[in-house]
Amino acid sequence: MNDAEIIAVGSELLTPERLDTNSLFLTEQLNALGVEVREKRIIGDDRTLLTAGISEALVHAQIVILTGGLGPTEDDLTRDAVAVALGRRLELSQEICGWIERRFATIRRKMAEINKRQAYLVEGAEAIENPHGTAPGQWIEHDGRIIMLLPGPPRELKPMFVERCAPRLQRILPVAVIRSRFYRVAGMGESDLDALIAPVYTRYTNPATTILSGLGDIQIHLRARCSKAEEADALLAQVAPEIESLLGDRIYSNNGDSLEAVVGQMLRDSGATLSVAESCTGGLVGQRVTSVPGSSDYFVGGFLVYNDAMKTKLLGVDPQLLAARTAVSEEVAQAMAEGAREHTGSTYAISVTGEAGPESSSGAPVGTLIFGFAGPGASETRRIQFGGDRERIRELAAQIALDFVRRQLLPRQSEAPTSQQH
Amino acid sequence: MNDAEIIAVGSELLTPERLDTNSLFLTEQLNALGVEVREKRIIGDDRTLLTAGISEALVHAQIVILTGGLGPTEDDLTRDAVAVALGRRLELSQEICGWIERRFATIRRKMAEINKRQAYLVEGAEAIENPHGTAPGQWIEHDGRIIMLLPGPPRELKPMFVERCAPRLQRILPVAVIRSRFYRVAGMGESDLDALIAPVYTRYTNPATTILSGLGDIQIHLRARCSKAEEADALLAQVAPEIESLLGDRIYSNNGDSLEAVVGQMLRDSGATLSVAESCTGGLVGQRVTSVPGSSDYFVGGFLVYNDAMKTKLLGVDPQLLAARTAVSEEVAQAMAEGAREHTGSTYAISVTGEAGPESSSGAPVGTLIFGFAGPGASETRRIQFGGDRERIRELAAQIALDFVRRQLLPRQSEAPTSQQH
Repeated sequence: MNDAEIIAVGSELLTPERLDTNSLFLTEQLNALGVEVREKRIIGDDRTLLTAGISEALVHAQIVILTGGLGPTEDDLTRDAVAVALGRRLELSQEICGWIERRFATIRRKMAEINKRQAYLVEGAEAIENPHGTAPGQWIEHDGRIIMLLPGPPRELKPMFVERCAPRLQRILPVAVIRSRFYRVAGMGESDLDALIAPVYTRYTNPATTILSGLGDIQIHLRARCSKAEEADALLAQVAPEIESLLGDRIYSNNGDSLEAVVGQMLRDSGATLSVAESCTGGLVGQRVTSVPGSSDYFVGGFLVYNDAMKTKLLGVDPQLLAARTAVSEEVAQAMAEGAREHTGSTYAISVTGEAGPESSSGAPVGTLIFGFAGPGASETRRIQFGGDRERIRELAAQIALDFVRRQLLPRQSEAPTSQQH
Repeated sequence: MNDAEIIAVGSELLTPERLDTNSLFLTEQLNALGVEVREKRIIGDDRTLLTAGISEALVHAQIVILTGGLGPTEDDLTRDAVAVALGRRLELSQEICGWIERRFATIRRKMAEINKRQAYLVEGAEAIENPHGTAPGQWIEHDGRIIMLLPGPPRELKPMFVERCAPRLQRILPVAVIRSRFYRVAGMGESDLDALIAPVYTRYTNPATTILSGLGDIQIHLRARCSKAEEADALLAQVAPEIESLLGDRIYSNNGDSLEAVVGQMLRDSGATLSVAESCTGGLVGQRVTSVPGSSDYFVGGFLVYNDAMKTKLLGVDPQLLAARTAVSEEVAQAMAEGAREHTGSTYAISVTGEAGPESSSGAPVGTLIFGFAGPGASETRRIQFGGDRERIRELAAQIALDFVRRQLLPRQSEAPTSQQH
């Protein structure tokens, strides 16, 4: 009895402006109880669709949670639809009438006749009192399944689930524990990463592996589910080290931290500071570095140098070098990083120059990016060719710039070869 | 043929951290075509559930749109599940193989063998080319129903739907004309804006008014739906002028252009240039300005000055002024803007300084932001107190900075009083 489906009820949740977010809270709660959410639905205030949806959910899931549609008006249909789907009647509950009357007294209003609709219980259901609103919840056991009807407003739903439903589920459910590992990887495409680690993770269904791909940033989730924590840990211990060793230092985080937070922590740990010199990214690198609270500990500032004249004026890049090599060159990237380091006095500096498109001004193809790193030891540069549109190129460039800093700060011996194509 | 169901595919969308947001975009698009979304589902990477879900959706809806699950890996099951649900085979398409190979060539990588999985087409389906990724879409007509398979990444899905699917749906669907007006407003909270214009728009159900609120940025959509274009235009002509006159120059765009694009066009039109001096926003303003293609026409560059020493070193802010007034003061904001203008030679400069939190270093309350504007005429400053967390404060600050520039560039007579609370 470990699969759940969540059905959010309400036509307002089918507009372009609204999302069902109750299901995030419920998923977190259910996962903690060892229950997987296998499907979610959002259904409007439509009797036919809602009844069909509930019947379908009962085929697939052992636990069905409905949220919303428990109000007092005509279009609050959850009670009716559940009764029809289960082939049960609705019964007026005097107990619930009393609850609702008391609730109205608390908020110093008189109960309207219409609120009696909320006092109908699906035959055989157990009412769950709602201290924060008028709509009581309902708990139904049917054919080995559990159906919960919960109010839609989060401030009513959350305490009801935590205080009344979760403890009850816990008593019923077979003990199951979910343990997980979480990696974030920079500097690889999804298909390259998959080619590398699929031979490992496809050998196992438990732990289950999920790969989520962002721009230059991939998340890998391993989730092992067992009746005992030690068993789950043992399963993870079979797979995780293999994946870790295949990916090496391309894994930048195993706790969910962002790349900018990881780089920040490395700088803080070594008592070093960073500055930036950005051309085509126009502030994107600085913006990411400073999105981390406390980044003033290690970030001093930088330069946005969006044309050749500014590269010379603000960073002292030799105009003859710019004329001879163009702004999109290793020499200029290096001079930018060194200029930023010199003018700010930071320990390290990272520079980005390139063609984000849609047009190229230097003659280099759109998507050509050059990164410069300057530190107390030596300067280093990287050239990468990106594809895609301006937004993609700029976001990848900021990601690679941060990863370039991270790699420069890593202990030397563990460096892995890096892919130069994105 | 006016009901749709949207199915988002992917186990990651069933975790406590992730929501399906593609369906919001699709709902907006479908509504504009006169199509109602009656149900949405989120189904994990599970062949049985996915196949059942598609079959169930086809019972209820005339249009079924699946998003995601079209990647190259083992757990990308959308193609397989649709084929099974429709009782059709999957066929390798040489045409799609060619597309994918060309796509890899564009981003200068070699196509991996695994990507061939993406070249399988449901028998009878029409492939939809994906200029922004490797997963092509599919368009299937089956038993009077339309099934679309679209890629999950928004930057692939959105252009594919707008450019290829919407026009095609429009040709098939019964005639209904939707005409719309679209305003973007900066510098107001949602409740203030609603209090101002609700007395107008609530008098009408056609056009329907939708208000979408972002951080310091509100979108107002008016949508009139009639069988003839002239009727729809006439309905809009009743409401739109009233709303425009209430909002005045707080409307910065009536064609969907972003604030940074509007500011850029104003600068370009007047042959002026801009530079920035950013403290707590750390590059966010520059990043937004340079996100617009062609921004090198008017943006020269700027300074990230993340501590007092950098404000003095890079911008020449008097250290005694910093000591006397702190970095979070009108005087320092003004000196930063003037310093940026002087050091870059730009026509105008905008500065941002303040406390983004979580801690305050200057003593000013977290959320205190000061903006400086320098131009050939005179300098001007604004002080605003924001609420919320670091991310909210920084994003609002960048928005207000851009809007400050826009207001300074407006012809003087039309200036409206601005709210100082956010």
